[in-house]
Amino acid sequence: MHKKNIIDDAFLFVRSLGMEARKIIKEKVTQDFFYELKQDGTFVTDIDFAVEDHLRGLIKKRFPDHDVVGEEFPSTLTGSPMRWIIDPIDGTHSFRHKVPLFGTIITLLNENEPVAGLIDLPMLDRCYYGAKDHGAFMNGLPVVIKDLSITDRLDLEIIATGDILQFENVNMQKYFDIIYKNHKRVRTYTDCFGHAMVIEGSVGAMIDVDLKLWDVAATLLLVKEAGGIILDIPSCGTNGQYNIIFGKPRLVEWVAAVLGI
Amino acid sequence: MHKKNIIDDAFLFVRSLGMEARKIIKEKVTQDFFYELKQDGTFVTDIDFAVEDHLRGLIKKRFPDHDVVGEEFPSTLTGSPMRWIIDPIDGTHSFRHKVPLFGTIITLLNENEPVAGLIDLPMLDRCYYGAKDHGAFMNGLPVVIKDLSITDRLDLEIIATGDILQFENVNMQKYFDIIYKNHKRVRTYTDCFGHAMVIEGSVGAMIDVDLKLWDVAATLLLVKEAGGIILDIPSCGTNGQYNIIFGKPRLVEWVAAVLGI
Repeated sequence: MHKKNIIDDAFLFVRSLGMEARKIIKEKVTQDFFYELKQDGTFVTDIDFAVEDHLRGLIKKRFPDHDVVGEEFPSTLTGSPMRWIIDPIDGTHSFRHKVPLFGTIITLLNENEPVAGLIDLPMLDRCYYGAKDHGAFMNGLPVVIKDLSITDRLDLEIIATGDILQFENVNMQKYFDIIYKNHKRVRTYTDCFGHAMVIEGSVGAMIDVDLKLWDVAATLLLVKEAGGIILDIPSCGTNGQYNIIFGKPRLVEWVAAVLGI
Repeated sequence: MHKKNIIDDAFLFVRSLGMEARKIIKEKVTQDFFYELKQDGTFVTDIDFAVEDHLRGLIKKRFPDHDVVGEEFPSTLTGSPMRWIIDPIDGTHSFRHKVPLFGTIITLLNENEPVAGLIDLPMLDRCYYGAKDHGAFMNGLPVVIKDLSITDRLDLEIIATGDILQFENVNMQKYFDIIYKNHKRVRTYTDCFGHAMVIEGSVGAMIDVDLKLWDVAATLLLVKEAGGIILDIPSCGTNGQYNIIFGKPRLVEWVAAVLGI
């Protein structure tokens, strides 16, 4: 199949994957579930495994020659340029406590570039998805990250961050302190909930650090497709994580300037 | 009518008020609405007025001799011991930005004691309500704040706070800094969303300050009815606000000890 057609296909398919994940999560979240603390300080539950296993089956059936990388199972890497990245439940700490701000993230990479992606917030019934050059959508409607004008007040924008723990993990605690000192409407809308709020334009910008590929791949695509920008934060001595600021261009530039990066 | 019967009545009535507010909010939130920044730094919209006006009408019809105090209209105070307190939209900053974590708060006081109350989160379809000696409920099911046992890890609990701005308003910035330094899972789940998360037992405790009566009256009732506790934080030189820590008893005691109060 031509790559252009694969992206068209994936644009529709990724949303059906999100709906399948949502079905499993909504059914199981009200029941008791087993969970354990992983070495990296995040939680994993039997629902994580059930969702990832189901999504892997659906992808294998639809695109048998694509590779799949997920948070909970070993990767299937055959050298295909097309690779699906799955985070069955992002925001496991929220999930373990039943705070309804967790979600599922699914992304298709072509030669390491995100070309289709989804963030589904099952408890909020909000599905964000899109594909390269197709735009970004929430529940069927286009979402746009509208830049601020020169007369808009930056101080009234909401800026999101991850947990302080994430900043400490990558020696970036100072950025957490600086943004709280310099902006009065900073909120820890962690994980994919914060990402989704930026993608729909409700939150102006987010500083999120210590991220893995599966945490961030869909966001890299959807923020761009919605009209936002993404800046990398230079590493502070640790490697292998994504550390980014993303959102409304003018606000992202202001945050970067305040953080001195 | 006997007071006991009024509480029974109010227990059912308050929920219908919440559903009426939700209907108006959900219809109008997707449209453009007028908003303005008030002197106290919060936003008010024409939807706030529409909701409060509608609720006042319903209360007047059902309990014509009760008083009503709302955030947006002048109080009707005739000296009745029964007083309804309305916050049509709590979390106006979230609301103005369309972050879906705002809600409606309605409380009935008898001689200044909350006897029936509701927090409705319209965008999450979650309604929390209860009455004195009737328990607390979410969407028809009882909610319980289960205390932690001696073997439960306090450090894995989520602790919520309001915005840093609220702490600054009442000279309590130090408490914000202390809790972030001493607990790694603190989140700014501000306003009634944070309160609701504590009432359902998802968030372990919340430190919320610079609150008005309409921000807090339902929470005082529902936290107690669900089995949690509430501690007052002594004033740091300002007056007229509620400054409280509430949630799972063992965690609330730990927070108070860490804050040195």
